[in-house]
Amino acid sequence: MQNITTVILAAGHGKRMKSSLPKVLHNISGMSMVEHVIRVAQSVNSENIVCVVGHGKEQVKAQLKDAPVKFVEQNVQLGTGHAVMMADEYIEAGDILVLYGDVPLLSESTLNDFVAMHQKDDNDATVLSTIVDDPRGYGRIVRGSKGFERIVEHKDATPEELDINEINSGIMIVKAPILKTLLKQLENNNEQNEYYLTDIFGLILEQQGKIGVMIAEDDYEVMGINDRYNLSLADEYMQKRIKKKWMLEGVTMISPASTYIEIDVQIGKDTVIYPNSILQGNTVIGEDCIIGPSADIKNSIIDKGVSVKHSTIIDSKVDEKSSIGPYAYLRPKSDIGKHVKIGDFVEVKNSRVGDHSKVSHLSYIGDGEVGTNVNVGCGVVFVNYDGTHKHLTQIEDNAFIGCNTNLVAPVKVGKGAYVAAGSTITEDVPADAMAIARERQVIKTNWSNKYQKKV
Amino acid sequence: MQNITTVILAAGHGKRMKSSLPKVLHNISGMSMVEHVIRVAQSVNSENIVCVVGHGKEQVKAQLKDAPVKFVEQNVQLGTGHAVMMADEYIEAGDILVLYGDVPLLSESTLNDFVAMHQKDDNDATVLSTIVDDPRGYGRIVRGSKGFERIVEHKDATPEELDINEINSGIMIVKAPILKTLLKQLENNNEQNEYYLTDIFGLILEQQGKIGVMIAEDDYEVMGINDRYNLSLADEYMQKRIKKKWMLEGVTMISPASTYIEIDVQIGKDTVIYPNSILQGNTVIGEDCIIGPSADIKNSIIDKGVSVKHSTIIDSKVDEKSSIGPYAYLRPKSDIGKHVKIGDFVEVKNSRVGDHSKVSHLSYIGDGEVGTNVNVGCGVVFVNYDGTHKHLTQIEDNAFIGCNTNLVAPVKVGKGAYVAAGSTITEDVPADAMAIARERQVIKTNWSNKYQKKV
Amino acid sequence: MQNITTVILAAGHGKRMKSSLPKVLHNISGMSMVEHVIRVAQSVNSENIVCVVGHGKEQVKAQLKDAPVKFVEQNVQLGTGHAVMMADEYIEAGDILVLYGDVPLLSESTLNDFVAMHQKDDNDATVLSTIVDDPRGYGRIVRGSKGFERIVEHKDATPEELDINEINSGIMIVKAPILKTLLKQLENNNEQNEYYLTDIFGLILEQQGKIGVMIAEDDYEVMGINDRYNLSLADEYMQKRIKKKWMLEGVTMISPASTYIEIDVQIGKDTVIYPNSILQGNTVIGEDCIIGPSADIKNSIIDKGVSVKHSTIIDSKVDEKSSIGPYAYLRPKSDIGKHVKIGDFVEVKNSRVGDHSKVSHLSYIGDGEVGTNVNVGCGVVFVNYDGTHKHLTQIEDNAFIGCNTNLVAPVKVGKGAYVAAGSTITEDVPADAMAIARERQVIKTNWSNKYQKKV
Repeated sequence: MQNITTVILAAGHGKRMKSSLPKVLHNISGMSMVEHVIRVAQSVNSENIVCVVGHGKEQVKAQLKDAPVKFVEQNVQLGTGHAVMMADEYIEAGDILVLYGDVPLLSESTLNDFVAMHQKDDNDATVLSTIVDDPRGYGRIVRGSKGFERIVEHKDATPEELDINEINSGIMIVKAPILKTLLKQLENNNEQNEYYLTDIFGLILEQQGKIGVMIAEDDYEVMGINDRYNLSLADEYMQKRIKKKWMLEGVTMISPASTYIEIDVQIGKDTVIYPNSILQGNTVIGEDCIIGPSADIKNSIIDKGVSVKHSTIIDSKVDEKSSIGPYAYLRPKSDIGKHVKIGDFVEVKNSRVGDHSKVSHLSYIGDGEVGTNVNVGCGVVFVNYDGTHKHLTQIEDNAFIGCNTNLVAPVKVGKGAYVAAGSTITEDVPADAMAIARERQVIKTNWSNKYQKKV
Repeated sequence: MQNITTVILAAGHGKRMKSSLPKVLHNISGMSMVEHVIRVAQSVNSENIVCVVGHGKEQVKAQLKDAPVKFVEQNVQLGTGHAVMMADEYIEAGDILVLYGDVPLLSESTLNDFVAMHQKDDNDATVLSTIVDDPRGYGRIVRGSKGFERIVEHKDATPEELDINEINSGIMIVKAPILKTLLKQLENNNEQNEYYLTDIFGLILEQQGKIGVMIAEDDYEVMGINDRYNLSLADEYMQKRIKKKWMLEGVTMISPASTYIEIDVQIGKDTVIYPNSILQGNTVIGEDCIIGPSADIKNSIIDKGVSVKHSTIIDSKVDEKSSIGPYAYLRPKSDIGKHVKIGDFVEVKNSRVGDHSKVSHLSYIGDGEVGTNVNVGCGVVFVNYDGTHKHLTQIEDNAFIGCNTNLVAPVKVGKGAYVAAGSTITEDVPADAMAIARERQVIKTNWSNKYQKKV
Repeated sequence: MQNITTVILAAGHGKRMKSSLPKVLHNISGMSMVEHVIRVAQSVNSENIVCVVGHGKEQVKAQLKDAPVKFVEQNVQLGTGHAVMMADEYIEAGDILVLYGDVPLLSESTLNDFVAMHQKDDNDATVLSTIVDDPRGYGRIVRGSKGFERIVEHKDATPEELDINEINSGIMIVKAPILKTLLKQLENNNEQNEYYLTDIFGLILEQQGKIGVMIAEDDYEVMGINDRYNLSLADEYMQKRIKKKWMLEGVTMISPASTYIEIDVQIGKDTVIYPNSILQGNTVIGEDCIIGPSADIKNSIIDKGVSVKHSTIIDSKVDEKSSIGPYAYLRPKSDIGKHVKIGDFVEVKNSRVGDHSKVSHLSYIGDGEVGTNVNVGCGVVFVNYDGTHKHLTQIEDNAFIGCNTNLVAPVKVGKGAYVAAGSTITEDVPADAMAIARERQVIKTNWSNKYQKKV
C-alpha cells in the first residue's frame, strides 16, 4: 500500500446507547469498537491514524493512550465533512481513508481489497457500498452508464431510486490533495446545517474526476452501531468470525454459540471447548486441552493437556496435564505446576503449587509456596491474614497436610512432614516430623436421649 | 377503548403437550401462557376478562386466583363456538374480543391497533390474520373485490385458495349484540359435530354486515402452542422481545442468546449481563452492575454497582457496590449491605451482613446478624442447628473471626473481638476480647519414616 | 428389507480437520461420526456392515471393537471406487448400500425410504440426491426425459448444467452382482488417477440398466464433514433433532439452544431442563425432575422428582425426590437415596447416602456409608486417605455429625450418636453416645487493642 492516512470519526454522542460510556468505547468481543477500527486501519499500513474525538473525548483518549493514533478534536458536531476538516493538518499526501469508530466489523481482507482497488484504478475517490435487503433510511448508490453517478439520500430519492438496494457505507478513500481542496468547498446550506462528507463525490464528478465503488459482500462489515441491540448483533457476528477461525485451525467447539471467545485469545489444536465457556483477554490455551463446560478464563496461560471444568481462572498460569475443577477459583498470580490437581471448591491466590501436588477439595491456598508431590487434604486453610497483614505459608516437597487444618502464616512445613487432621499449626514443622494440635476424643454414652429431652 | 369484554378460550386438553399440567399453564419467560393473554387483554382496558376453563380447570383456577378474571366452564369440548357460548352471560354490550390461552405472543401494540381499527371502522366483526410462508393446515382469508369474503378451511379450499398465504388467526372482535344473536344460530352439522366460531363471519355477511381484517405483521404473534417444541419456539421469541427491550434501554448483553430473562425482571442502564445468566421472578437490578457469567437470580433486589458472578441468589437483597461470588449461594432472606464481599464457596441464609464486611471464602452464614466491617475468615461455620432448633449468631462491628472456627449458636461476638483460628466458640465473646479454644501444637520428630513403614 | 450389505467408506485422511484423531472418530452429540453411520445402517437391517478403513485404521478399529462391523483395509487412497473394491469379498448377493463415515446426519427414515424405493422399483442402482441453494463444487444430477441421465462433475458441467441445484450425495444402493461386475470395469484414466464410484452409473445406462434417484428433502442429511466448522454445524443440527424429539415426548426445555444432550440420553415427561445443562453418555432422567440450570450429568441415573442445579454428576445414581446442589459434585459411585439433600459445595465420592439424610453444605463424603435420616453438618470431612490407603467411614441411621468435624477413617458412628462440632473423631462412636474432641474456650479480655498495637 502507498502512503495512507486513516481518519477515524469517533466524536459522536451515541445518545441511543443510553450510556455514560462514549459510544466508540463500547466493547465487541473484548475490544472497544474504536480499537477494532484502529486495528483494521493498521492492516493497510496507515502511516498516520487520526482519531477525531469529541463527546467523551477524555475517556476516549485515556482508553487509547497506548494506541498508535493521533487525536484531533471536534468540539461541535457539524457533520461528517466537518469532522474530517478537523484532521486537516494530516491531509497532505497519499490517500486519506475515512473510517468510523462505530462501524467496527470491517474485515482486514475487505479493507485491503478496497485500498488496493482504489490505488490500482488510480481513482480520485473510492466509496465502499453494500447490498441490503431493506435499504430504508440509507443513502443509495446511483449507477449510470458510466458507473458511479451519485449518492442520493433516502429522503431525496425518486421512487425508482428508492428501489436501489446498494447503499453507501460512508467508508471512502480519497486522494489527499483532492480531499484537502474539496473540504474547503463543502457547504452546510441544508436543513441540519451540517457539512456532509458525501458531497465531495458530486464535486469530484463536476471536475471530471474518477470515482470507484467497491461492494462489500457482507453487509454486516459496514453496519453502524447505534444502540445496544446493534451492539449485540455486531458482537454475535464477531463471535462467529472468531470461533470459525479457531475451528478451522483444529479446535473442536461443542455448541459454539454458547461460548464466548475474545479477539486476542489463542487456542491450540485438538483442544475441545465444551459449552458455556468464556475466554477473555490475552488468554493462551495449549493443545489437547479440555476447556469447560463453564470455564471462565481471563488473561491466563493454560498449557497443553490441561482440563478446566466449571472454574474461574484470572491472571494465572497452569502447566501441562494439570486438572482444575470442577468449581475451582484461581485468583491472580496462581502458578500451578504440571500434573497438579486443583479440585472442587478450592481457591488459590498468589501462590505456587508444585508439580504432582494435589489440593483436591474445599481448601484455600493463599500466599503460599507449595512444593512438589504435596497432598493438601480437605478443608485446609492457609491462614494468611492476621487482620492487618498477609503472610507466607510454605509447604515443602512430599509433605502431607491433614484435613480441616489451619496453617497460620508465617509458617513452614518441612519436607515429608505430616500435619494431623484438625490441627491449627502456628509454628514451623520440621522435615519428616508430625505436628498435631488437637484434643483427645471423649465419649459420653447414652447421651442422645437426655439431649433430645433437653432441647 | 370503548367497553370491551375479553373471552379467553382456555379449556382445551393440549394432549400433544404430554403433560399432567393443563396446556395453558405452561410457562413462557416466567409466566403461564394464559397469564400472558390476560396481561395483553388488560392493555386494552377490558372491563371483563372471562376465562373459559375445562380440562384441568381446578389447576387453572388455582393459578389464576389473584388474576382479574371471571371463570365460566366448558365441560365438554364442542368447538370454539361452543366455548364462547359458555360466556354468554358476559356477552351483553360493547365489543367482545376473543383470545386464546394457547396463543400467548400477541403484543400489546398489535392488539391495541386491532381494537382501534375495529372501533374506528365501526365494523360488526374484525378478524386478525397473518401472512405465513407455509399455510398448510390453516384456514385461508379469501378476499374479493369488496374486501373480506370468507374464511375457507384447508380441507375445503380450491387449488387457487390453497395458494393464499393469508391465514386466520382465530382472534376476532365482534359487536356484542351481533355475537349474542349469531351464537344461537351456529350449527354443528359437520364431521366433528362441533360449533365453529368462524361460521359467524358467513352469517354476518348474509346479513350485509361489515367485516374488517387486520394483518398481524409478525406471524409469531398469533402462533398457537400445541406441543413443547412450539412452546420452546414461543419462549425463544418472547426472550428476544424482552432482551431487545432492555438493550434498547441501555443494558449491555454479552451473548444475549445464552441468557434467560423473565418478563417481570427490571434492569438498570449501563449494567452488563455476561453470558449464561438466568434472571427470574420479580428481580430488580440496578445500574452499573456486572451480572454473570452464570448469575442465577430469582426474586431479588440487586442495587447499583453490584457484581454477581457464577452465583445463585434467591429472595434476597444486595446493597450497592457489593460483590458476590464466584460460586456463592444466597438463600432466602439474605440481606447484604454495601461494599460487602461474599466470596467463593460461601452460603448465606436468613442473615444480615453489614456494610464493608467480608466473608471471603468457604463459609456458612446461617441465621446470623453480622455487623459492619467484620472479617469472617475462611472455613467459618455459623452452627445454627442443634438437631432440633435453629439459633441466632451475632457478630458485632469490627470483629475478626479466625479461620475454620465454629460459632455455636446462640452466641454473640462483641465489638472488635477476635476469635482465634480453629476455635469452637460456645459462649459469648465480650467486646475487644480474644477467644480461643484449641489445643497447643505438639511436634513428633522423625515421625514420617516410622509412619510410612506402618501403613 | 431384503439382504443388504452396507459398505462404509471410512479411510480418508481428513486433513482439514487438523487433528491427530482420524476424521471419522470425531464426535457428534456423544458418538463418533462413523458410529452414527453404523447405527443408521443397522436401521435397515444390514446383514453385513463393512468398514473400509485406512488412515488411522488402528484407532478406528479400536473405537469400533464392539461394533457389529467387519473391517477391510484401503491402504492407498485411490478414490471411492477403489475403496469399495476393497470390500469385494462382501459384495455377493442382495443390495450393496454405500455410506460414508463423514456423512453422519442421514436419518433412519430417509435411509429406510431410500432402500424401500430401490427395492420396490427393482432398480439396478439408486442414488440419493438433494437440492441445495449453492451447488458449486458438487456433482449435479442431470435428468432427461427418461429420468436420470448422468452425474456431471462441477468442472465438467456446461453453463446450463451449472444451474442445476440437485446434487449427488454419493450415497447409493446397487444390486450386488452388477456392482461386483462394474467395479472391475472402472478406470482411472483421469487427472487424479482415481477410480470414481459414480462412473458405475454411466456403465449401468450403457447396459440399459435402471437407475433411480431419491431426493433427500433436508440437505443437511447428506452433508459431508471436512473441517471442525462443518463438524460444529452438523452437531448443532443433531442437537436440534435430539432436543425436538424429547420436547415432543413431553419434556420442557427452557432455552434449549443453550443445552447439550447426547444421543443416548433418556428423559422422562414433565421434566424441565433449565438452561446451560449438559447431559452425556447413558444418562437416564426420570419424570418431573428439575434439571439445571447448569447441570452437568454423565452416565448417571436420576430418578423421578429429583432437582439438580449447578452441579456435576458422574457415574452415579440419585433416587427419587432428592435435591442436588447448587454447586455439588457427585463423583463416580455416588449412590444417593430418596428425599436426600446434597447441598452447596458438597463433594460425594464412592459413597452411599441413605434416604432422608442431609449433607447441606461444605462437606466431603468420600468412601462412606451414610444411613437414613442422618444430619451431616457444615464443613464435615470424611478423612478417607492416610497418605497411602483409602478407608471406610460409616454413619448409622439418625446420627448427627456436628460442623467442621473430621471423621478419620476407618471409623464408625453408631445409630443416633452425636459428634460435637469441631471434633476430630478417630475412634468409633457407640450408638446413642456423644463424642467430643475439642478444647474448652478461653477468653482474654481487652486483647484487641494490645494486638492491634503489636501487628
